[in-house]
Amino acid sequence: MARAGEPLLVSDLETPAVVVDLDVMERNLSRMAEYCRSQDLSLRPHTKSHKIPDLAKRQLSHGARGITVAKIGEAEVMLDSGITDILLAYPIIGKGKAEKLAGLATRANITVALDSLEAAQAISNEASAKNVRISVLLELDVGFKRCGIADEDEAVTLAQKIAGLTNVDFKGLMFYPGHLQASADERAQLRVAVNDLLSRVLGKLEGAGLPVQTVSGGSTPTASESHLFVGVNEIRPGMYIFNDRNMVAVGVAEVEDCALSVITTVVSKSVSGRAIVDAGSKTLSSDRYQLGDGLTFGLIKEDREAEVERLTEEHGHLNISQSSRQYRVGERLTIVPNHVCSTVNMHDKLYGVIGERVETIWEVAGRGKVQ
Amino acid sequence: MARAGEPLLVSDLETPAVVVDLDVMERNLSRMAEYCRSQDLSLRPHTKSHKIPDLAKRQLSHGARGITVAKIGEAEVMLDSGITDILLAYPIIGKGKAEKLAGLATRANITVALDSLEAAQAISNEASAKNVRISVLLELDVGFKRCGIADEDEAVTLAQKIAGLTNVDFKGLMFYPGHLQASADERAQLRVAVNDLLSRVLGKLEGAGLPVQTVSGGSTPTASESHLFVGVNEIRPGMYIFNDRNMVAVGVAEVEDCALSVITTVVSKSVSGRAIVDAGSKTLSSDRYQLGDGLTFGLIKEDREAEVERLTEEHGHLNISQSSRQYRVGERLTIVPNHVCSTVNMHDKLYGVIGERVETIWEVAGRGKVQ
Repeated sequence: MARAGEPLLVSDLETPAVVVDLDVMERNLSRMAEYCRSQDLSLRPHTKSHKIPDLAKRQLSHGARGITVAKIGEAEVMLDSGITDILLAYPIIGKGKAEKLAGLATRANITVALDSLEAAQAISNEASAKNVRISVLLELDVGFKRCGIADEDEAVTLAQKIAGLTNVDFKGLMFYPGHLQASADERAQLRVAVNDLLSRVLGKLEGAGLPVQTVSGGSTPTASESHLFVGVNEIRPGMYIFNDRNMVAVGVAEVEDCALSVITTVVSKSVSGRAIVDAGSKTLSSDRYQLGDGLTFGLIKEDREAEVERLTEEHGHLNISQSSRQYRVGERLTIVPNHVCSTVNMHDKLYGVIGERVETIWEVAGRGKVQ
Repeated sequence: MARAGEPLLVSDLETPAVVVDLDVMERNLSRMAEYCRSQDLSLRPHTKSHKIPDLAKRQLSHGARGITVAKIGEAEVMLDSGITDILLAYPIIGKGKAEKLAGLATRANITVALDSLEAAQAISNEASAKNVRISVLLELDVGFKRCGIADEDEAVTLAQKIAGLTNVDFKGLMFYPGHLQASADERAQLRVAVNDLLSRVLGKLEGAGLPVQTVSGGSTPTASESHLFVGVNEIRPGMYIFNDRNMVAVGVAEVEDCALSVITTVVSKSVSGRAIVDAGSKTLSSDRYQLGDGLTFGLIKEDREAEVERLTEEHGHLNISQSSRQYRVGERLTIVPNHVCSTVNMHDKLYGVIGERVETIWEVAGRGKVQ
């Protein structure tokens, strides 16, 4: 560790350690904020990618309108830090959770996305009981086939029912274009059907006299194309703050834009053609790579000829058989993970660094908030 | 939540929640302990599967000789709870970690597995500085190609060097037969080469006058076949305490032996042929299934005709198109995860239940200890 009175260096950290290059992060934050300003889009970053109130506040200071979270536990962490405009982009189901949601709404402006009358009714009941108002976005399924309504008539019927409930305000639409995490060509092709659905739903809502204040789209892969989506006036990118190997794979970031990486140590090289590092699935997560068969688990900055070809919990299995680099036990490597959100969720702290110097240690306060 | 004065029930828990059937767990613990007694094998369970000191103590009370952990942070948690015989089955690399290891050895009987002179030398230096002794097992690669020495002459050379170091005691061999997580037939076939290597190494060590006290094998898939491995007198199964879908896949457990499951709620069914539950990769982990293409993520106890065919962070995507069951938003389902160790590592607490009643809430004190 650091000597007394001297700065803490990356080389002082025990591995595995998750470090964030603060300069790269700031550049990522600025770029997205600038794009949103230039296109007159509201920015509401999804904080699942970092789960750290201080970083949410950096996003707000760059001009974000509010933040996005998935779960109530994440909202609580952000609210406790003083953030008061929060979208829960996840269906809140059941009386217990609806009650907690209404509790949050006594302290902040809360918007929730949903796709069922069951969810809306329970939220209305609890909001009424606490005499608070909760804004509602109707989730559309634009093709990812996860949550959301995919039919314009069903969407309008549900929107009308929501508008008729007490203490909830129908504010518009939300969608998550997860199937557009793909190449630029594929994104452009798939966008046609998304826009077609958005046009139809917006037309029908207008016809039904239901005003739409917000159309919330986004995600990092499509973020810089948001102005090409019909009606979208708010976006919710998450990963852009750090980027990751999958964002490089789909062409929306360069390796140099990846702010977060894992510092790891070679712990064994006794098996021929292999080097084993101390970053396994407990460090990187098992989330797959966007390209090929999906079964490589990170980009090794020091050696593009080697592959992280397998993860067990505590071991990263590097295939170095195609590499001309010499590996030795005890040396350190830097790995950019496939999926930054799931990597962050494995860790209690992240280190913010400038060059070799550790400037900040963040607690990942929203880690593991599955409820 | 529970009414005042009334017991807490599973139905009172917010979802997702990880529950452990205490009766099934006790049966699993008893069976393994009984097998080890019957075969005169020492049992040293790998506590990575639960990361909970109280459960490690249950294992000791069932007759385990000591416990196994991977990382120093895990050892600290177990040691702080009063457990004093710990094997670190992971290469401890670097001065900082070796120093911590020697610190542990001032408070407990510490054994460490390693496969390099670099590791052994650093540990010897720090053990000498603290005037403690640390036991060493030489790790063999019996075919998994992760860590370990696969050549008998290299193994003996390294063992001799270890035996010559100060304050470390060469105690024998350790291996992890990860490639034997396979069907019974495949295990039997692969065991031939494992035994061949074990025989050669043990023969050479004897020839070199290096006494072998311990040959530590194990893992849950091979546990009940441990008496068929040459020389093995200690095993380190982990998953057996809970079992999981992959243990069912390789035929070493039935679904009824799976003590741990995730209680989850259907949060959306607006997309045809799909039901979405609130257990995604942040709850189940993205670890793959042993069978097929690996891309199904849990067994749904209530519906064997449905598949968890995709996970995003907070969403489990159920394909219910082949199911005759009616799904509704708000109902609960029970999912047995693919890999119990990685599921446990996602959570801060587990609930020990008997029937519908929550008997115990455990903090997962060793969660996320990647160092």
